[in-house]
Amino acid sequence: MKKISESAVRRLALYQRFLQEAASSGVDTISSGELAERGGTTSAQVRKDLSLFGSFGKRGLGYDVPELTRQIREILGIDRTWRVALVGAGKIGSALFSYRDFQQRGFRIRAVFDSDPAKVGQDWGGVAVSADAEMDAMLRAEGIEIVIVAVPAEAAQAVVDRVVKAGVQAVLNFAPVRLRVPRTVTLRNVDLTLELEGLSFALTSR
Amino acid sequence: MKKISESAVRRLALYQRFLQEAASSGVDTISSGELAERGGTTSAQVRKDLSLFGSFGKRGLGYDVPELTRQIREILGIDRTWRVALVGAGKIGSALFSYRDFQQRGFRIRAVFDSDPAKVGQDWGGVAVSADAEMDAMLRAEGIEIVIVAVPAEAAQAVVDRVVKAGVQAVLNFAPVRLRVPRTVTLRNVDLTLELEGLSFALTSR
Repeated sequence: MKKISESAVRRLALYQRFLQEAASSGVDTISSGELAERGGTTSAQVRKDLSLFGSFGKRGLGYDVPELTRQIREILGIDRTWRVALVGAGKIGSALFSYRDFQQRGFRIRAVFDSDPAKVGQDWGGVAVSADAEMDAMLRAEGIEIVIVAVPAEAAQAVVDRVVKAGVQAVLNFAPVRLRVPRTVTLRNVDLTLELEGLSFALTSR
Repeated sequence: MKKISESAVRRLALYQRFLQEAASSGVDTISSGELAERGGTTSAQVRKDLSLFGSFGKRGLGYDVPELTRQIREILGIDRTWRVALVGAGKIGSALFSYRDFQQRGFRIRAVFDSDPAKVGQDWGGVAVSADAEMDAMLRAEGIEIVIVAVPAEAAQAVVDRVVKAGVQAVLNFAPVRLRVPRTVTLRNVDLTLELEGLSFALTSR
């Protein structure tokens, strides 16, 4: 498979949501123009994105909604569930834990870790908060595939080093710091302040 | 000024963080290679990004850290403070409100709104949660420049329509839904599930 850019993957995920909405409204076929609007791009880009993975749709007839939905779900790997752990049971961690959309899309948080003894043992809707010291063994025992890091910036690199050592290959980082991971590990950063800076730039450069 | 891509703005913000770290470690000059590493890009891209805004640095000598920091802060509009309001006092809203990095970078949350009577009147560290009905008038009265939307997906479009009507020109949306805004308004979306989908794609396509 060709190397797919992060932005192409992002667009595929947006197309997929639109397809789901369309399907639930009983729409059977959809044009590249409609998908383009949803993905914030052009029809040509939609056709190019989808052609990376094979041939979809019929010229002039548009795409078959259930079929394309199924194929994109498979491409994105969201036709299954994922075993996720959350490190950091603070405010951000707690908000992420309750985020319904994760659950609905198959991302199941199976373990939560924190170094604060006051938090360890708390019952979070069926998941008990575990001590930081138990993390390494539990990541392996639970077969965790994705780890969400929601600890303070100064603690994040040490956490991710342990997570990587425990064999986890995908990390979503919310700590406002740049983390180093081996090439075999995929790291995505959600940098909340960066988004606000994008807005301040837009307001300033008018 | 030329049209600057969202990704270029993002890289500038990353360079700026690295410059701040460098400054606090007493580093005076920095090369485009070092900035490139931080921004996850190439030296050529760094030079191109910075050249969009004027001429920085001296060939072979690198960039002057305090000077470049000052200039990027000015370009990004983070050499000042911004008046921010938060709509939605749920778990995500509460986590964002306590997010220290916003405050440190000059994004000051001055008002919080919620439609839940049980939340209205709560004191959030000096800011009282206001009733949803007061939002339109308060956005104007407080001169709010940026609004963070952290309400459920089904409520988000109605909120953003009112925010836009109240004259706010920058919106950061956390609701997992695509919002429509006029062209004069800048909208950024933080889509938490999209990031996890990026990871599931990476794990699947190995």
